[in-house]
Amino acid sequence: MIDRVEGYIEAHREEYVSRLSEFLRIECVSTDAGRKGEMHAGAAWVRNLLVGAGVPAQIMDTGGWPCVVADSGPAAGGPTILVYGHYDVQPVGDLALWDSGPFEPAIREGRMYARGSADDKGQALTHLLAVEAWMKTVGRLPVRVKFLIEGEEEIGSPNLLPFIRRHREKLACDYVVISDTAKFDDNRPAITYGTKGLVYKEIRLSGPTNDLHSGSFGGTVANPCNVLTRVIAQLTDADRRVTIPGFYDKVRELSPAESRELQKLPFDEQAYLGTLGSPALDGEAGYSTLVRRWARPTLDVNGLFGGFAGEGSATIIPAKCGAKVSMRLVPDQVPDEISAAFDAAVRALTPATVRLSIKTFANAAPYVCPIESAGMKAAAAAVEAGFRTRPVFIREGGTLPILPEFKKILGADSLMMGFCLPNCNAHGPNEFLVLEDLWAGIRTAAHCLDRMAGVGAG
Amino acid sequence: MIDRVEGYIEAHREEYVSRLSEFLRIECVSTDAGRKGEMHAGAAWVRNLLVGAGVPAQIMDTGGWPCVVADSGPAAGGPTILVYGHYDVQPVGDLALWDSGPFEPAIREGRMYARGSADDKGQALTHLLAVEAWMKTVGRLPVRVKFLIEGEEEIGSPNLLPFIRRHREKLACDYVVISDTAKFDDNRPAITYGTKGLVYKEIRLSGPTNDLHSGSFGGTVANPCNVLTRVIAQLTDADRRVTIPGFYDKVRELSPAESRELQKLPFDEQAYLGTLGSPALDGEAGYSTLVRRWARPTLDVNGLFGGFAGEGSATIIPAKCGAKVSMRLVPDQVPDEISAAFDAAVRALTPATVRLSIKTFANAAPYVCPIESAGMKAAAAAVEAGFRTRPVFIREGGTLPILPEFKKILGADSLMMGFCLPNCNAHGPNEFLVLEDLWAGIRTAAHCLDRMAGVGAG
Repeated sequence: MIDRVEGYIEAHREEYVSRLSEFLRIECVSTDAGRKGEMHAGAAWVRNLLVGAGVPAQIMDTGGWPCVVADSGPAAGGPTILVYGHYDVQPVGDLALWDSGPFEPAIREGRMYARGSADDKGQALTHLLAVEAWMKTVGRLPVRVKFLIEGEEEIGSPNLLPFIRRHREKLACDYVVISDTAKFDDNRPAITYGTKGLVYKEIRLSGPTNDLHSGSFGGTVANPCNVLTRVIAQLTDADRRVTIPGFYDKVRELSPAESRELQKLPFDEQAYLGTLGSPALDGEAGYSTLVRRWARPTLDVNGLFGGFAGEGSATIIPAKCGAKVSMRLVPDQVPDEISAAFDAAVRALTPATVRLSIKTFANAAPYVCPIESAGMKAAAAAVEAGFRTRPVFIREGGTLPILPEFKKILGADSLMMGFCLPNCNAHGPNEFLVLEDLWAGIRTAAHCLDRMAGVGAG
Repeated sequence: MIDRVEGYIEAHREEYVSRLSEFLRIECVSTDAGRKGEMHAGAAWVRNLLVGAGVPAQIMDTGGWPCVVADSGPAAGGPTILVYGHYDVQPVGDLALWDSGPFEPAIREGRMYARGSADDKGQALTHLLAVEAWMKTVGRLPVRVKFLIEGEEEIGSPNLLPFIRRHREKLACDYVVISDTAKFDDNRPAITYGTKGLVYKEIRLSGPTNDLHSGSFGGTVANPCNVLTRVIAQLTDADRRVTIPGFYDKVRELSPAESRELQKLPFDEQAYLGTLGSPALDGEAGYSTLVRRWARPTLDVNGLFGGFAGEGSATIIPAKCGAKVSMRLVPDQVPDEISAAFDAAVRALTPATVRLSIKTFANAAPYVCPIESAGMKAAAAAVEAGFRTRPVFIREGGTLPILPEFKKILGADSLMMGFCLPNCNAHGPNEFLVLEDLWAGIRTAAHCLDRMAGVGAG
């Protein structure tokens, strides 16, 4: 049956490009409260495609921008798949930097240029079109498929978690399938199987009531800026390891299978360094650059502020200062535990000569899906069938707070199949999707349903 | 003879108050380029007083605001005294905070309130009036007296040093006498015999070309903010001592005489702490608060900047960051040596994973005058005669870059006799001078000339 589906997909290549263009023309900028018409048009476009394919779908209110929820209904067997994606897009930024209008899709050298082509309209569309291809050819889906296509991903999904909690029965599934990540490079499609968690803190120190003359009063009371540097410096050691007690206790090392996959990746450290512009690579001793990037926790100062920062000089002992400090976590670190350990460590390091306050701004769990699970194997086989090449298994250093929540609320692991290029300018000017990757993505999504039919319900 | 001079001074107390008021009404705000008329009027007022007293005086161009230079001419013997002061004043700030107009001198509870009453018109005036009293009574001065009353002190004396270099013959003297400091407290006039030097630096670190996503790239390149905290933290140790190699090599400990003077001072640490508002006193281990404040070098972070400092969170690895770091120096530390040692230490502490640049914004020497010198003893005796109480010997943690230059260019030590109160609001609203201190200051200045006559030429 999959052969017939694939044949259908091949026959509709050009039509798919037109339909992607149509989708991309709708200006679904979720940061812009004035785009109500466009946002609803985007959701309606998705709903209509599904309904047209014979899959019951509806636009649902979330309290913010609406989402589209669909359900193909009970299947003969196999697990239930929930395809998660988003129809909203990033703002376009400086129009002068675009070679063609962000909402005027243009094809150049086999690439579709437009805002949302990669993130995420183009990638989400692969699953919609694959379902349509199955329905138009076979008349039914090999597994039960649900959709949750939201409109608030680019503004941090403020209403998604309560929505999922409220509709946990409706969204019940065995696997979540997501295409909102990238290939490893031009020739290697990738399955992203892990993300880091995040705990974000703001430390503030205060000393004297007002800024003091550093001559008249220097040496008699603690300078909050000096203290701040000492406190933060002691949170890491010379090996770039975090010194917070217990920080590494629950860190899971890479499995032998993960290590094998990672070692297969052609990673050019000097080329990578060149794209970042730093004078050297640096990080926790004893781990390779890729392992540090994907599988080791970090502690970064995101900002420092206090005292005089203008041109020239001001001889003050600043009354107060602060720092933004965040930690990226890896499985099985627990955000609440790390958050408390951070606070305790900072309190212990801060002398009684200054006053300390700590705020918490983010608290998101890491996520990882075992790469040897049945669902992961089916996804990998689907990618191989769709792209005619084996996918690589990678992790992502960024944080997708929804993944551990899918696991917690729905009990479902997430399979992230990425079809765009890593340098596709997802949030910048001239965002693009390679058309061959669009078609390979649709094939992959079609094969995915086929392969999943052979996997037992989660 | 001094008795006749003192009698004259007593007889003119009320007249002196009127003349101080007249001087204070001239709005000599040197920061304000539009005050050309007032600045010249201020200089003329000083010149006219001296000429009226029979002391040849002239207004001289400095390239900026003019200064007044005078010379009483050769005396029978004794050293030559150069009285240094300034007729310019600080801006008035928020008028709403003044209880009477800053340029409408008002007497309340025995205090003269006006901008410049203490800093420095009122204090400089004591020497002008003392010279006048000598001339009106005795008809000549007991020693040769020169005056240098400038108009740019409140803007950092940008033209003073070249002026002194250019006119070193004209300004040649054995002692510089300055009244631009404060008493120790209400009842204790003070001679300030030392000031700290200053070396002020800006450190900048840069890493990646642009701010990086702390998730996607964290752990692979050095975070400049993390590095900055480590570099700065290592510049001092747990005992609050500066770790820069050689930093303390030339630090002169207090002499036994200085220590004795210091121990006599009634210093209430808790009251001092209360005025600053810090939770505790803190500083270099092994030294009392006053010794740290006046006689120990310090290293203070004056400002920190870099990355995200707004409300909430931004998960970036900042591309760059920086700090303002300054050191207050004590005798016999050499600014050029400390500056170079700082740069070398920071370079040694900064890893090759970031780029470093260092700027220098100030490089001023510390100053100290031996308290047992003949000139100092004469000054102390004069204060005791003028105030009817022994002065205390104190240092100042602030920096007066001109003092070591007077020593270097003119070969003259500076005797700083302070007549205003430490809380006289010198740069704030409601600046005042106690009238009894004005009169005691004039007596002191008169006695100073008398006592100096017994001191050999420096």
